[in-house]
Parts: sequence; structure tokens; C-alpha cells
Amino acid sequence: MPPLIKNMGLYADLYELTMLQGYYLSGRKDIPASFDYFFRANPFEGGYVLFAGLSDLLEILKNYRFSKQECDYLASLGFRKEFLDYLGNFHFTGDVYAFREGDVVFPNEPVVRVDGTLTETQIIETVLLNILNFESLIATKASRMRKAAGNALLTDFGLRRAQGLGGIHASKASIMGGFDSTSNTFSAFGYGLKPSGTMAHSWIQSYDDEIEAFREYANIYPDSCILLVDTYDTLKTGIPNAIQVAKEMEDKGHALKAIRLDSGDLAYLSKKARELLDAQGLDYVKIVASSQLDEYIIRSLNEQGARIDAYGVGTKLVTGKEDAALDGVYKISWCNGSPRIKISDTLEKMTLPGRKKVRRYLDSNGKFLLDGIYLENESMPARYFHPHQPEKNTDTKGMQHEALMQQVMVRGEVVMEDRSISERASFARERLTKLPGEHKRFENPHVYRTGISEELMNLRDRQKIRINEKMKK
Amino acid sequence: MPPLIKNMGLYADLYELTMLQGYYLSGRKDIPASFDYFFRANPFEGGYVLFAGLSDLLEILKNYRFSKQECDYLASLGFRKEFLDYLGNFHFTGDVYAFREGDVVFPNEPVVRVDGTLTETQIIETVLLNILNFESLIATKASRMRKAAGNALLTDFGLRRAQGLGGIHASKASIMGGFDSTSNTFSAFGYGLKPSGTMAHSWIQSYDDEIEAFREYANIYPDSCILLVDTYDTLKTGIPNAIQVAKEMEDKGHALKAIRLDSGDLAYLSKKARELLDAQGLDYVKIVASSQLDEYIIRSLNEQGARIDAYGVGTKLVTGKEDAALDGVYKISWCNGSPRIKISDTLEKMTLPGRKKVRRYLDSNGKFLLDGIYLENESMPARYFHPHQPEKNTDTKGMQHEALMQQVMVRGEVVMEDRSISERASFARERLTKLPGEHKRFENPHVYRTGISEELMNLRDRQKIRINEKMKK
Repeated sequence: MPPLIKNMGLYADLYELTMLQGYYLSGRKDIPASFDYFFRANPFEGGYVLFAGLSDLLEILKNYRFSKQECDYLASLGFRKEFLDYLGNFHFTGDVYAFREGDVVFPNEPVVRVDGTLTETQIIETVLLNILNFESLIATKASRMRKAAGNALLTDFGLRRAQGLGGIHASKASIMGGFDSTSNTFSAFGYGLKPSGTMAHSWIQSYDDEIEAFREYANIYPDSCILLVDTYDTLKTGIPNAIQVAKEMEDKGHALKAIRLDSGDLAYLSKKARELLDAQGLDYVKIVASSQLDEYIIRSLNEQGARIDAYGVGTKLVTGKEDAALDGVYKISWCNGSPRIKISDTLEKMTLPGRKKVRRYLDSNGKFLLDGIYLENESMPARYFHPHQPEKNTDTKGMQHEALMQQVMVRGEVVMEDRSISERASFARERLTKLPGEHKRFENPHVYRTGISEELMNLRDRQKIRINEKMKK
Repeated sequence: MPPLIKNMGLYADLYELTMLQGYYLSGRKDIPASFDYFFRANPFEGGYVLFAGLSDLLEILKNYRFSKQECDYLASLGFRKEFLDYLGNFHFTGDVYAFREGDVVFPNEPVVRVDGTLTETQIIETVLLNILNFESLIATKASRMRKAAGNALLTDFGLRRAQGLGGIHASKASIMGGFDSTSNTFSAFGYGLKPSGTMAHSWIQSYDDEIEAFREYANIYPDSCILLVDTYDTLKTGIPNAIQVAKEMEDKGHALKAIRLDSGDLAYLSKKARELLDAQGLDYVKIVASSQLDEYIIRSLNEQGARIDAYGVGTKLVTGKEDAALDGVYKISWCNGSPRIKISDTLEKMTLPGRKKVRRYLDSNGKFLLDGIYLENESMPARYFHPHQPEKNTDTKGMQHEALMQQVMVRGEVVMEDRSISERASFARERLTKLPGEHKRFENPHVYRTGISEELMNLRDRQKIRINEKMKK
């Protein structure tokens, strides 16, 4: 999909622009800098995040511009002419390193690193966070629903309850995370997703009789007919009428594809519906269920032996309920030749200084065991340390390993291999398979191990001492 | 703001389009119909919703088109040529009646009514719900934060954690609900909102010394300088350095505007900061606080006597946490000359048939007392009944009252008075003032009374009996 909005330059917090003007006026605009994107906690009390949004982000960075009209607006806010002349010619020319979209990622490891001038690494903060935080949140949520649903079909029904235009990316991220199709025609078109959808209650209510509404729909869509059976009464009228129409379709050489349950006790109704359909030789008619679903309800339906072949999931998928946001941040780690950290009252919020890489180590079964973070210019470490309890450390000698961050942009040019959404979704599925089950369970998942190299730990600690000493003065 | 996306035709669930083709092929595309937009439960366990999003919706409806490229896409999905020729020429030509943006609205009353052909009333369902549900959710959330914050300044900091492009409308809705400004430059430009923002930690970290960073910023922005004081240590370095720079600014005839606290115990730190500043004669320097705020934390800070002049609120504002979505629905109420209802297993989910109006009754102090729903063609009722317990009813004789729904679109043309965002925000403030406090409190708010006329109740009950009798056959 091409960028929805031509110029994304202003899609930034105003402070990015006031800082940019400051860098410009103080002669520091071209100082080299590096920023890391990382998050601090997994959403949904889960054990991982599925990384998504990178391709949308790179597309935006490639086209990041300020139009004349936008510069005029900034002038009206008091920004200075010489700075705006500069901004009017701004292009993003940085280098970007990132995990692959669809990989599983963990708290506090750099998932994306941006190297460039202070100006270009700074201005993209807001849009980077906005896109990566949201798409990763929804892809993660979708992957949990996929886990709960097993092999059942999953369709995104969420656009009507999505957070405004956020629905556009939500549908894509849902597919990345394991959904099969979406009701969102806009995103299906733009991103090449599989669209799906048949009828609402209003179709049925626009007729005087439910059966007349069913019959007409079956005539028009004899090969893709899914009948919504709960407008008046699921068991008394909906299913009997659907069965009658299914029989009429058989007489004409067609087959009713499915019925859809959209209210009531889905476990009970689906079992009852299966019985009623089977009793009429309609065992080929599938049962679709929707209505306030999430991963927990889907799991519960399975546990109750519900006979559901496909789920339509809306609100809780596209808004990432209960969490609504991934807490990703974008922090400076290196500037003008030296590493930078942010000290904080809480130990866990201290950042990791320097330009870093990440490597994943596998156990003897090829499952993911540990992600190790180290400095770009050090040789591959053999041991990784818990960031705050160095007595906990892991010797990685002899282990299989793989580099996790690829360069995806070189001086503002996208160099990432262009993979389709379904390739990215397959990659996500494959990576999730390699993540041990204890990190994927919904309740109290085991914390995945991430460690830092000795050199990185020492650099961080030296930085901290240096700053603490300065504070004493 | 002009529509962000030129053609919104495909911004619809696919089932709207399959139904549309069905209406077209069955010769029913021009049957007259009416739909109601309403929601069933207040978000945030609150007592009201602040209605927002109408102007964005009307702008979209006015421009609702299907391009050639989009029709070609639909052809590739199997839609038929004659239908797509028709769709390619589609314009929305319906009538829209709605509450005013910024009014307080309540569960189960029609907030928007759309009259038109079955085609045009149906196709807009998804986009209508998407925009109105989200903007109303965020305006409501913002109004709660405004209530908690009293007269303190409120700034939206949420774009980085917003749900993708949903951030664009979230910032506007925040202002509608009572915020003063936004960090979101894109929305500030597009909607004419007040933008605000100064510096991030990275500004400070890009220097070797905090004080050097503060000093440079003060030189560049002598009249709008807000210094972020928690990069290294708020009390040990941040505030002392800010005080030193404030003194230097005084020497040059300038004044430090504020300091910003972004972590730690905001109640304690703000009181301590106030003391330290005041002790240096810097009582004019304001204190801004940010960091995971919501209405409950702001209230708690006030209760603790925190000395905070302005709040920056992000994630929980723009995502509407804990709720993430308003449960608004869009249901057919009238079609081809007769009223329609949807019966449901749960009494509360039964819809109200017919084309309706809403009137608000005031108590002797001019406060809102009751919203009464009645049929368009009945004369103004004198008594309204609880929708499901008719023994509860209210005689409105002698009460002041006002019509709540205005016609805002006539045959596809916007006829709504064009009010600025700040006018709409003032209107919202005024309406909230007239809503008694017991409906605005956060904990267990009193349920606002809505009632239906006897005629509407009888129509609904007759419809129900008719459908039940049909089901017995």
C-alpha cells in the first residue's frame, strides 16, 4: 500500500520540531547519533511480542517530507525562516537495522536501531513509535487468538470498533499474527489481504420474512452463502429457516457454505446447530461464530467442545484490549562519538548505551533459548549476563546462533527484501513454533532470557559512574 | 481538515458490499430505509458519553466515492459488472439527523439517524461506526480528565502510543473534551488545534552536560522555555540546573516558563520543586507533569496537594484505556414503509422501531433531567416510560425542554452550521455543566433517565408480538 498520507513530516510531536530547530541553530544538526527502539514489558501479561509494522515504517521514512504548506504553517507558529528552508529540503538519509517483521521479540532488546544525523534520527521518533507500537501490539494479540483457535478459520471483523483510521493497520497486523481474512475491504485492497463477509441483520430485517431474506441471498450467492441465524430466534427460526434454504440449494445443485451465530451461548448453540444440521444431512455446512470474542473465550469454547469452524473477532482484536498500547520507546544510545545513557530512579529503566547488535541462541532442539545483546564493534561474546544481576549468566559455547538485526535501510534507501504479507505471516508462524511453549502460555508465562555482553555491561556501568560523579560536583 | 483519504468507498466491511450487490440485483436498491446510531453502555463505568466525530463523518459522507481502480478491485473479487457500473456513480444523497457535537448523550437513545435508500444507508455503516465510536470515546475520556484536573492546563502527548493513524482523530477529540493543546503537529495543522511541545530527554543526552543542554535551549527559546528535569536525577541535578539557568535568563530579561517532571513520585517531586523554585524567587516558573497519567492519578495528585500547573497525558487518553472502544451500533429501524425491530435473547438488546426524535427535559434549575424518545410523526408526548418497566414513567408537563436532533445533511448536502473546534469544545463544557454531578462522578454514577413515548412503546410491542406470532407458525 502506498502511504495513505502524502507528507508525513508533521506527523510528529511538536517537541521533535522545536528540538530540530535547536539542533539547527546551535550548529549541531549533522552530529551523528543512534537511537534504539525497544519496549519494556510484554502486553497481555504474555511472554513475547510479535514484531510488525516495519515495512509500513520504511515506506513512510522513504517519503518523509515537509511540503511548502506545512513549512508555512510552522512559520506561523514562530519557527524561523532559515530553519524552515532547511526543513523544506529534508530527506531521511539514515541507516536502519531491524529484526525481521514477524520475529518474536522481548523486553529491553533493541528491535530497531537508527543511525544518522541528530536531525533525522530525532524527527522520526513519533511516527516510528506510533506505527511499530501499534502493529506489533495487534500482531501479538492476533497470534494469541490463533493459538487459542487451533486450525479454525479466523476473520477480523473489527473495523467498526477500531480506533479511527487505526483500523487500517490493525487488519494487516491481524493477518501477520495468524488471521486468515478480514472484513476490512480498504485494507484488503491496499495490502492484498483476503477479504471476507456476507450479511448483516439489516439484510434480514429489510425483508418481511427471514426465510425470504435467506432465500434471496442464496439465489444471488449460491457458492458463498453464509446465513446469519440470530436476528429473531436462533433455534426457533434462524436454523430451521437456514436448513430449509440449504435443502432448496441442494435441489439446485448448490451447497450452503455456513451459518453464523452472533449472540447467545455460542458453545450450546453451536452444538445444537451441528446436531440439527447433521440430522438433515447437512454435515458440510460450517458454523461461524462471532460476538465479543477474544483468546480466552475462544479457548473456553474449545474446552466446552463447541462445534465452531470459524471465528469472527472484532473489538478485542483490533484495539488490543486489555492493553491498548505497547509501551515501546525510542532512546538515544550514541551521539557525536560517544555512548549515551539515561539514568533513572528505577534500575530497570536505565538504557543500554552504544551501538548494539542482537544474536539469538538455540538449544539442542533448535528452540529459542537466549537473546544476547552486545556492542557492534566487539567480537561475538561467549557469555551473556543478566542486565542487573550479573551473577546470573549463560555460557553460549557450542550453541547454534543467528544474527537477529538486518540492515533494512542504507542511507535512506530501503534494502529490505520485499516479502508479501503471507510470507511474513508464515515467517511469524515458524518463529512462534521455535519459541518454547512456556513463553506462549496465557497465564504466568516463563520469562524469556535476554542477556548483555560483559563489554556492554562494563560500558554501561562506567557511564553510570561518570554521570554519578558529575552529579556530586 | 480535508478527508485524509480521497476515496473512502472501500472503508467498509465487505458484507456491506455483498449486501449492496444483493439489494441491487434483487431490485431493492432504492427502497427507503432508516438507521439509528446508538450505543448500549457508557464507557469507563461512567454516566455519559460526549458525542464527537460528526463533522468528520459528514465530510466523509459528502465525498463517499468508489474510484475506477476500486471498482476494478471489486470486480476481481467477483462482483458483477452492472453493479460496479452503478457503484462507480454512487453518491451519498441521504438525510442525516444528529445530536450536536459536544452534547452529552446516553445509552439506547438514537444519536444519529440516517434516512435514504437502502443502498446508501447501508454502505456507510462501517465508516460511521468507526468515526463516531472512536471520537466519542476519546472526547468522553478527555472530559473526565478535565473534571479531575480542574483549571490546570491539559496537553495531549499521546501520538506515539496512539493506535496508528487513529492518533489523528484522538487529538482532535481530546480538545473537544476539554484539553487545551496537543503535541500532535499533524492534527494541530489539519484541525487548527493549539500545538505544544519543547524537549525530550534526547535533547539533554545529546550534550555532555545537562546544564549546557538547558542553557542552549534557553538561548534559543527565551520566551517559551520548559526544561525537562529528570534525565539524570530530578532533585540532585535537574531542578538545581534549571534554577541556575532560570537565574541566567532573568539576567538577560527573560523568564523560564516551566520545568517538566516526567518520572518518579509526582506529588512529592512537585511539592519539593515548588519549594526549591519559590526559595529562589522563581514563583512564576510553572510545573508540568507527565508520566502514565489518567483521570484517577490526576485526581489523586490533587488530593495529595501536588503543585502541578499543567499535565501532559498520553497513552490512556488517546487509546481510551481501560475501554478502547465505545460499543456503538447502527441498526435498521424502518424500511419500505414499515418499522423494523431486532428481537434478541436479551430484552435490553431489542431495538426501537420507527423514525424517531429525541427531546431533553430540564428541571427547575435548568439541569438535564430526562431524554424522551418518540416517533417522528407523533405530537410531543407528555409522559415517557422506562423502556422495559413501564410502571416507571415521568410526567413532563410544565417542564422546559429542547429538541436534541438537528438535520445536518439534506439529500447528501451538509447543512450543519460550521462551528470551530473551540466553539464545539465550549458547547461541550456548557452541556456538561448542565448535567447534574451525580451523573459525572467516576464511581457508580447515577443512571441518567431516558424514556420512550407510549406510542413508541406500543409500536415496539406490536412489532414484537407480530414477529413472535410468525415464529410460532
